Amino acid sequence: MGLRSCHVGVGDVSKRILLGRKLRSSQLGETLLPKRIALPVFASDALSSVAYAPDEVFLMLSIAGFSTYAWSWKIGLAVALVMLTVVTSYRQTVHAYPSGGGDYEVATVNLGRSAGMTVASALIVDYVLTVAVSISSGAQYAASAIGPLRGHEATVATVMVIFLAAMNLRGVRESGAFFAVPTYAFMAAILGMCGFGLLRALSGNLPDSESADLMIIPQEGWEDPLTTVGLVLLLARAFSSGCAALTGVEAISNGVPAFKRPKSRNAATTLLLLGVIAITMMLSVITLAHQMGLKYVDPHELDRLRTAGGQALPADYDQHPVISQIASGVFDGFSPGFYFVVTVTGVILVLAANTAFNGFPVLGSILAQDGLAPRALGSRGDRLAYSNGIVFLAVLSIVLIQVFDAQTTRLIQLYIVGVFVSFNLSQLGMIRHWTRNLKTTHDPAVRRRMMRSRAINTFGLGMTAVVLVIVLVTKFLAGAWITILAMVTFFLIMKGINRHYENVNLELAADESDKLLPTRVHAMVLVSKLHKPTLRALAFAKAARPNILEGVYVGTDQQSTDRLLDEWDERRIDVPLKVLHSPYREVIRPIVDYATEIRNANPRGVVAVYIPEYVVGRWWEQLLHNQTALRLKGRLLFTPGVMVISVPYQLRSSQVAKERTARDQTRTRAGDLRSGRVADPESQQQVTWNRQD
Amino acid sequence: MGLRSCHVGVGDVSKRILLGRKLRSSQLGETLLPKRIALPVFASDALSSVAYAPDEVFLMLSIAGFSTYAWSWKIGLAVALVMLTVVTSYRQTVHAYPSGGGDYEVATVNLGRSAGMTVASALIVDYVLTVAVSISSGAQYAASAIGPLRGHEATVATVMVIFLAAMNLRGVRESGAFFAVPTYAFMAAILGMCGFGLLRALSGNLPDSESADLMIIPQEGWEDPLTTVGLVLLLARAFSSGCAALTGVEAISNGVPAFKRPKSRNAATTLLLLGVIAITMMLSVITLAHQMGLKYVDPHELDRLRTAGGQALPADYDQHPVISQIASGVFDGFSPGFYFVVTVTGVILVLAANTAFNGFPVLGSILAQDGLAPRALGSRGDRLAYSNGIVFLAVLSIVLIQVFDAQTTRLIQLYIVGVFVSFNLSQLGMIRHWTRNLKTTHDPAVRRRMMRSRAINTFGLGMTAVVLVIVLVTKFLAGAWITILAMVTFFLIMKGINRHYENVNLELAADESDKLLPTRVHAMVLVSKLHKPTLRALAFAKAARPNILEGVYVGTDQQSTDRLLDEWDERRIDVPLKVLHSPYREVIRPIVDYATEIRNANPRGVVAVYIPEYVVGRWWEQLLHNQTALRLKGRLLFTPGVMVISVPYQLRSSQVAKERTARDQTRTRAGDLRSGRVADPESQQQVTWNRQD
Repeated sequence: MGLRSCHVGVGDVSKRILLGRKLRSSQLGETLLPKRIALPVFASDALSSVAYAPDEVFLMLSIAGFSTYAWSWKIGLAVALVMLTVVTSYRQTVHAYPSGGGDYEVATVNLGRSAGMTVASALIVDYVLTVAVSISSGAQYAASAIGPLRGHEATVATVMVIFLAAMNLRGVRESGAFFAVPTYAFMAAILGMCGFGLLRALSGNLPDSESADLMIIPQEGWEDPLTTVGLVLLLARAFSSGCAALTGVEAISNGVPAFKRPKSRNAATTLLLLGVIAITMMLSVITLAHQMGLKYVDPHELDRLRTAGGQALPADYDQHPVISQIASGVFDGFSPGFYFVVTVTGVILVLAANTAFNGFPVLGSILAQDGLAPRALGSRGDRLAYSNGIVFLAVLSIVLIQVFDAQTTRLIQLYIVGVFVSFNLSQLGMIRHWTRNLKTTHDPAVRRRMMRSRAINTFGLGMTAVVLVIVLVTKFLAGAWITILAMVTFFLIMKGINRHYENVNLELAADESDKLLPTRVHAMVLVSKLHKPTLRALAFAKAARPNILEGVYVGTDQQSTDRLLDEWDERRIDVPLKVLHSPYREVIRPIVDYATEIRNANPRGVVAVYIPEYVVGRWWEQLLHNQTALRLKGRLLFTPGVMVISVPYQLRSSQVAKERTARDQTRTRAGDLRSGRVADPESQQQVTWNRQD
Repeated sequence: MGLRSCHVGVGDVSKRILLGRKLRSSQLGETLLPKRIALPVFASDALSSVAYAPDEVFLMLSIAGFSTYAWSWKIGLAVALVMLTVVTSYRQTVHAYPSGGGDYEVATVNLGRSAGMTVASALIVDYVLTVAVSISSGAQYAASAIGPLRGHEATVATVMVIFLAAMNLRGVRESGAFFAVPTYAFMAAILGMCGFGLLRALSGNLPDSESADLMIIPQEGWEDPLTTVGLVLLLARAFSSGCAALTGVEAISNGVPAFKRPKSRNAATTLLLLGVIAITMMLSVITLAHQMGLKYVDPHELDRLRTAGGQALPADYDQHPVISQIASGVFDGFSPGFYFVVTVTGVILVLAANTAFNGFPVLGSILAQDGLAPRALGSRGDRLAYSNGIVFLAVLSIVLIQVFDAQTTRLIQLYIVGVFVSFNLSQLGMIRHWTRNLKTTHDPAVRRRMMRSRAINTFGLGMTAVVLVIVLVTKFLAGAWITILAMVTFFLIMKGINRHYENVNLELAADESDKLLPTRVHAMVLVSKLHKPTLRALAFAKAARPNILEGVYVGTDQQSTDRLLDEWDERRIDVPLKVLHSPYREVIRPIVDYATEIRNANPRGVVAVYIPEYVVGRWWEQLLHNQTALRLKGRLLFTPGVMVISVPYQLRSSQVAKERTARDQTRTRAGDLRSGRVADPESQQQVTWNRQD
């Protein structure tokens, strides 16, 4: 019997456990996502940006007045071009890295740890901003449909974030329908609205939008005629804001394992589909808005909107988002149409924010496995770590919402930097990937495919690099510096954590001296009273047959000491009892000192300290018990050659906590669906059955 | 060798430890307090009330205008009479209960647990109010001396509480001089000032106070002539406010063990001395203030103060406390005199607040020993519990200061109820005490003494009961209801805690079945990596020679699992390794399930789970390590028949924490002095030497 065979020949007990697991594994296939479900699961983030990206384009162009609106569809085309490039590039990634590591994996594997950490920092910042931007935009749509909410957008947004966080903390059981219904409804609403509008345009009776009759005063210094430099700068700003449409496109590359086989091919197809739909929606909205004569300015500068006569608008004039204005125009007189469009837009924005709550714990887990985040985040089922991540995300995004008063326009300035940093590093990594693979590949057909892929990624890199530069130039002072500062901070934290783990690993590396066996075990059972927990600890300690076994009692007054000694005799406990005198009611120090003395007297022996512990179920009971034991344990662990043995005694109330844990375990976590981890009620049953068996 | 002899014949090791302790014990005698030091140590609380009690008397009388000020010295005499009665009663307590348990012990022993808990609730409330009232009054004195602080009394008071709490959290080394210098200075200042003032009065050149020229408008409905009922009610209110002078008198009864022998007699003498000094100071201040024509109204109703011509005072007029007004009058032109009086008054008020910070942890410890507070509070040296007590006290008193805007007058309304509740229960308890003792005593001389003591306590009860009724009637709606509500709350919490501990005791009471020994030990060492901590855990586990020993590894992916198995073979570790597969990266559940299965397969055996733990020194390192181990331990403890063994591996950084702990232990705690626990530098040395030996 070698060691290896013991591993292979698992015993009866563990076989039964493995059976439970195996069942779960085999059922997994059924929960993998077909394309028609995968599309909505991964699309909400990318598609939802059509709710705010066109607004930002019009808003930027408005700086120089209405005349520049003629450029709007060209800017839309430019954004669409970038989007197509990025989609094509990610199709390469999906094939080359089907494990779901996404940009982080590509950057780490091909460009090294620092590049990986940069991508990770960008992702963290992006998750926070996805929540802040989506929810802020959602709050604006809510306010455009529900009058009384106007002016309270930041509060509405904050409440929505708290609600989302609470839902995720509780655990939401996601299903395909959970995503499919609202996402397809959103597509239908936007494409239907645009189709209907374009039909009306072709038939010549497209109504004007509510802002068509207004005129825009250019910002000071941007009056007609624009210089060429001015125009270029303006278009660059509008373009970089429009690129907000690209956020979320990379989501599929993180979710390949959740797809049905052939996973990579299905993921790539879904990605292309997603790109095409997003482009169609964005271009339709921009075109239709322009056709309807829509005007849109920075909500901070509403006074730049005037009536056709040049007079100021009433003070309570409210500028609605672009899709709201189109909907109320296209469906003139038919308010259900308007409310349907605005409602599903709001829902899709909330769903987009929810993807961040789904993705964040997964990212934390990946970072933890690579030693860049606290290791506890790496194990699934660690409820506390999972909760911390959700709270972290909620708090940061609420801070952003409050600081920027839930104004999408101002948050957008922070948003796109991080996305394009990951795009660039990912493309660069893919180029390296193909170059390296080309060195070892000789099959001409394969080489040709690789060369083509590399060309695509090179083109992608060029494109995204240009966009990144444009974004940096046009947005740095407007807020992108905050993003970069945050990224640097997260980067340094990860680096610090990684360095710490590496130092610890060096310090812990085993050498030959570690095989020395202690010569003997001196066991002591801490006694506070002679009750069931103490007797159990004594019994367990005896069963372990140490070389020396004694009870240890810290006597703080003579009366209690005498009482205990009498009881000890009465019960005929055949273990000697040592009393440590402590006139000042110190408990911890005498025990630590005593254990240290024993260890020092016999440096090759081990001191085993048995601590009877009560196990209680309610938080306030915890405060009433075990506090001293806990602190004592903390102190003993600093003493070399001491091991601390907790002997639990389960009080009846511990059942409460046990049931709570069981409930906790059967609860799904947000993000399970997109990681291909859908809890199957039957397999859960199986596991429970095993545990009670 | 019986069990008892093992206790008597302590081993070499523990002898050396006991030696250290013994040295400390024998040196204790030297730190006991002679009367001249004990007086200032225990007097600050009681004496400091002369800084606000006279103000309250004048303020209450002012309701009906200046004419009622003629009653002021009679009210002073009435308060003095109550004070003398209470002092005489406590002299009985000091003789009968020299252990320092004070009112709580008297009530519990003689009247039962509920009475004791009532006293304890009253004490908790009083500690909070001592801090709030003393510091608020101190802030008023500070504002009377330092102009710019005026109007910011609540902030000044809050900062002072935070400062006091911080000092006490850090640990202050108290000495006799720490108390003696300011307390004697305060006595000298007040008595000197009053003596000087009375001398000037005798010689006919006593100056008027700054408010002598003002006139007081009576409150509406209280204009002259008063009805008899009105006058009685007014005097009752003034009297009950004046009784604030009695707070703190009981302190000595809690500190008898700190006195030099004969402890009780010295304590009784000191108590009498304290009473005489307090009465002298209070009567002097009241008399002198009245002689100097002082006017004092509720700071909320400053508009009731008018110039002699009946005109309103300037808006920025500031009414100074009584002692300030006397000092600036008596020392006219000699400002050092004024500043000395005001400064020492401020200092004594802070010192009085500090006594609450000293007494509160001691009370917590006593309550914990009696099962009325979390048990952890009962062991000295439990830094966390101690700190929690101080923070609790600081937070509650800051809340009061902020809610009542640091206005002594309003806080006083809450103050005196609690004190008189304890006084009453304590007197009642003493009467029971003597009655019971009389039943078993036959020596006529002793019986006479007891009868006399009982008569004194009976008179005391009558007196304090009347005062309690007066206080309740006059102050209930003014704020005393808050105190009573708080007392009821604390009472119920203590009752709940007590009931919980009693239920647990019932559940834990040992019976014969608890002596059964487990038949065998199945040990598993949890392996995450093959590093020093794991090897140490394996070595310790082997040394304990369990019936079965295996390593257990949770495999989350094949690659890491294979790597570990290879390393296991390479290092030739002669312990079998079991791999539990966990495709979803769960770590805790597979282990808990496995342990449960083993236990269920052999219900009479014990499962010993060895967990290698890193010991690190810094708080953020704690976040990076052991989180999973901690939670795993938490889960395993709910499984019957499992014991959890922490095998610590001390990383280099653990030294940081060890040094921190050592620093912590040599630090004194506030209240050490009055408990007779003064840390002697030499004996500390001794203990340290023992520990490193």
